[in-house]
Amino acid sequence: MKLCRHGAPGAEKPGVVDSDGRVRDLSAHIADIGPDALGPDSLARLAAIDPATLPLVAADVRYGPCVAGTRQFIAIGTNFADHAAESNLPVPDEPVVFQKWVSCIQGPNDPVTIPKDSRKTDWEVELGVVIGTAASYVSEADALDHVAGYCVVNDVSERHWQIERGLTWDKGKGFPTFGPVGPWMVTADEVGDPQALGMWLSVNGRKMQNGSSKTMIFTVAQIIAYCSQFMTLLPGDIITTGTPPGVGLGQKPEPWYLKAGDVVELGIEKLGQQRQTFVAWEAAR
Amino acid sequence: MKLCRHGAPGAEKPGVVDSDGRVRDLSAHIADIGPDALGPDSLARLAAIDPATLPLVAADVRYGPCVAGTRQFIAIGTNFADHAAESNLPVPDEPVVFQKWVSCIQGPNDPVTIPKDSRKTDWEVELGVVIGTAASYVSEADALDHVAGYCVVNDVSERHWQIERGLTWDKGKGFPTFGPVGPWMVTADEVGDPQALGMWLSVNGRKMQNGSSKTMIFTVAQIIAYCSQFMTLLPGDIITTGTPPGVGLGQKPEPWYLKAGDVVELGIEKLGQQRQTFVAWEAAR
Repeated sequence: MKLCRHGAPGAEKPGVVDSDGRVRDLSAHIADIGPDALGPDSLARLAAIDPATLPLVAADVRYGPCVAGTRQFIAIGTNFADHAAESNLPVPDEPVVFQKWVSCIQGPNDPVTIPKDSRKTDWEVELGVVIGTAASYVSEADALDHVAGYCVVNDVSERHWQIERGLTWDKGKGFPTFGPVGPWMVTADEVGDPQALGMWLSVNGRKMQNGSSKTMIFTVAQIIAYCSQFMTLLPGDIITTGTPPGVGLGQKPEPWYLKAGDVVELGIEKLGQQRQTFVAWEAAR
Repeated sequence: MKLCRHGAPGAEKPGVVDSDGRVRDLSAHIADIGPDALGPDSLARLAAIDPATLPLVAADVRYGPCVAGTRQFIAIGTNFADHAAESNLPVPDEPVVFQKWVSCIQGPNDPVTIPKDSRKTDWEVELGVVIGTAASYVSEADALDHVAGYCVVNDVSERHWQIERGLTWDKGKGFPTFGPVGPWMVTADEVGDPQALGMWLSVNGRKMQNGSSKTMIFTVAQIIAYCSQFMTLLPGDIITTGTPPGVGLGQKPEPWYLKAGDVVELGIEKLGQQRQTFVAWEAAR
């Protein structure tokens, strides 16, 4: 099942994608795709609805972030060995954990703002994990039971702010619009093994990232088990699990970064794709 | 005006503290002290209510966190020069910004859990700033206009997880119960200058921290202006602004940390005080 949220920013309605790829409106059955909608009982109720009985939504509808009410947007750093090498970062002994501010979350195809005074706005295609049930001190064996589904995330990053502005990464990861999420959350049953998903990203049509979740250093199950030792994962939380090689920071002979007018497209096998136009801060006001 | 939330965990009601220090119930006037309650119009409406007309709450009521619905719990590191020195950290050129998971927020006097396998659970009395209106790219001159009020925060920290477990601090700052907030949010008009507040903390009756917000490296206004360049601050967000010297990590000749049974008391001038018993993880289950 592919769940989504459609409509204007801040007024999105719940939806489901039918077998022909058309969005159907779920408003008659559930208020939103938020924390209360993501547990196994709720997902089973939604899965029992025949999409053909639901109203069709206009084909050109805007997608919002596929999950509402995210309280914690957790991110894993340098989780692909090749990406660690291109970033001149050590392969970590245990997951590197940081946060993206939840105020950066937006729809998958909304424009992304290049911040005022930004020097190094960069891209990162990542597998997003949507938590369905609260998780504290869970084992690796039980970890995937807490997953509602998966989605595409672009972990947009300002490298100067992340790396050269003092000790922690958080300030470079959460500028408004830096968290495109969606278009859909695909439920875990439909995705199967989260460690066998192709991932790609292009800038202005040029393929920059082309990897697979199979080369992650820490698996989704390991990441959930690990994070749950340090915090309580809540329904609706999103964990974005790291990016394969090919970001702007890693380009040879010189890194290069996004500028106004650039178009970034990215996708993950089974999870759909995103497309963002990057715009100057002055134009986004 | 001192606003609070009283009652059982997860079922708190809004309240106001009257001139005799007694809690009065605000439920007839507002649903909760959350993001919608913190703007200037809402605060003016609440301030116009005569507390004598409100029902008295039992004197031994539990206080919840003084703000509901916090979406971003922002923290500033090493913001007192003396604390930087005791922590063997450089005095920063610009604010160090990290996050506490919102799932760690709890009432000011609730027990704090020492995590399973914790080696270094530590204390930090801090001035909490509650955001009243959204802030993006605000100037230092305008920054305090976005503040609804102030509160006491204990930025409980696991130093081993914070410092010795890989690159970023976040994993040592947000274990469940590591965010006591309250007892009250005191509105900005009643606090006056946020840079002239005495701050103290004791462990088992022994005074460990005894400082003042006047020795902050970056002022509240500077911190808000700074953070608003990297993110959008939202109503109900809490910024905890750093701790003066005297934490466990800074003790000579050897650091020492909290153990089960320890009682931590802390307070800030004009903002009230907190008291937490620290309990072992096994006992807290």
